[in-house]
Amino acid sequence: MALINPGSSPPEVLELEKNSIGSTKTTKLVLHDVILRVCLFATTLTSLIALVTSKQTEMIPVPYPPYGASVSAKFTDSPAFVYSSAALSVTCLYSIITTILSFLALIKRSATSTKLMSCVFAIDVLLLGILASATGAAGEVAYLGLKGNSNVGWQKICNVYDSYCRHVGFSVLISIFASIVLSLLIILYIITISRR
Amino acid sequence: MALINPGSSPPEVLELEKNSIGSTKTTKLVLHDVILRVCLFATTLTSLIALVTSKQTEMIPVPYPPYGASVSAKFTDSPAFVYSSAALSVTCLYSIITTILSFLALIKRSATSTKLMSCVFAIDVLLLGILASATGAAGEVAYLGLKGNSNVGWQKICNVYDSYCRHVGFSVLISIFASIVLSLLIILYIITISRR
Repeated sequence: MALINPGSSPPEVLELEKNSIGSTKTTKLVLHDVILRVCLFATTLTSLIALVTSKQTEMIPVPYPPYGASVSAKFTDSPAFVYSSAALSVTCLYSIITTILSFLALIKRSATSTKLMSCVFAIDVLLLGILASATGAAGEVAYLGLKGNSNVGWQKICNVYDSYCRHVGFSVLISIFASIVLSLLIILYIITISRR
Repeated sequence: MALINPGSSPPEVLELEKNSIGSTKTTKLVLHDVILRVCLFATTLTSLIALVTSKQTEMIPVPYPPYGASVSAKFTDSPAFVYSSAALSVTCLYSIITTILSFLALIKRSATSTKLMSCVFAIDVLLLGILASATGAAGEVAYLGLKGNSNVGWQKICNVYDSYCRHVGFSVLISIFASIVLSLLIILYIITISRR
């Protein structure tokens, strides 16, 4: 391969031909990209709303006057849920920005700057790591709340806070979907760009 | 761009020239790839060993005969640690296979099949999601063990199981490094392949 002289045809023509060959694939990639990013926005927003609206107040009987105490649970009680809400907010905001970028690229039908694309997808990888770890942490707290852990004496709380647990569980479930959408986005980009 | 005739020079020459231009970059990518994959193997193996060797037995005083009870903690007590150990095992095994693949590609100094490369990195993305979520879940249990959660009455356990907590904490820390190495691997690939 090293024997072939790279200067046998002008580099600009080579570059343009490459772009021309890859332009249909790029348009297809950008279309899928827009759809997946809209899905990412929808899932992260839904998950975030379910998480932050998970406040619940319950009256529990106590053996001394006034024979009832009000206990409440909200998402800020657990650092894992705070981390999860932060990760979801950042991903949601980022998905809005990148959806607009992808949409503009789709309308203009031009090959977007590869530098910008690689930068966007590099941040996608970082966000996938952050979102997946946040989902793992929130999911673990939700699981402990549902089942408890008898080995270390952590009691389950979902028998008291039913609505709170439903909100949190739904949020974790949708957050898993958001992580999968983010993974699909990156895998789609890797496969398309490798074949170019 | 669509006006340019793709047939102006033979497609095979075009392909060979493209390979020739990209071959130095590919060798560099493969070298970084081997180094990062060895790091990934080392971090996942260390984290896995620290996690599975975290058994601890303690004697706690009880007010009735025989005035002492033996309590023990091991990593299988929490589903999060079992999940984490599974994710670490899979990543460790996968890093061995891909290190060998990358090393062979480096020795042969040939451009590896782009189909194989994109497949390997697509699985990397999936593993990043799994490993990051496992790290998040294990980290959350470790945090609860260290600090407890007074809002829901979960007591901390690290005052009793000190060695166990050190093992688990170390495992989580190294697991975070493993996730970062995996992210770097994918980002490096995306940036290199986008510029090709």
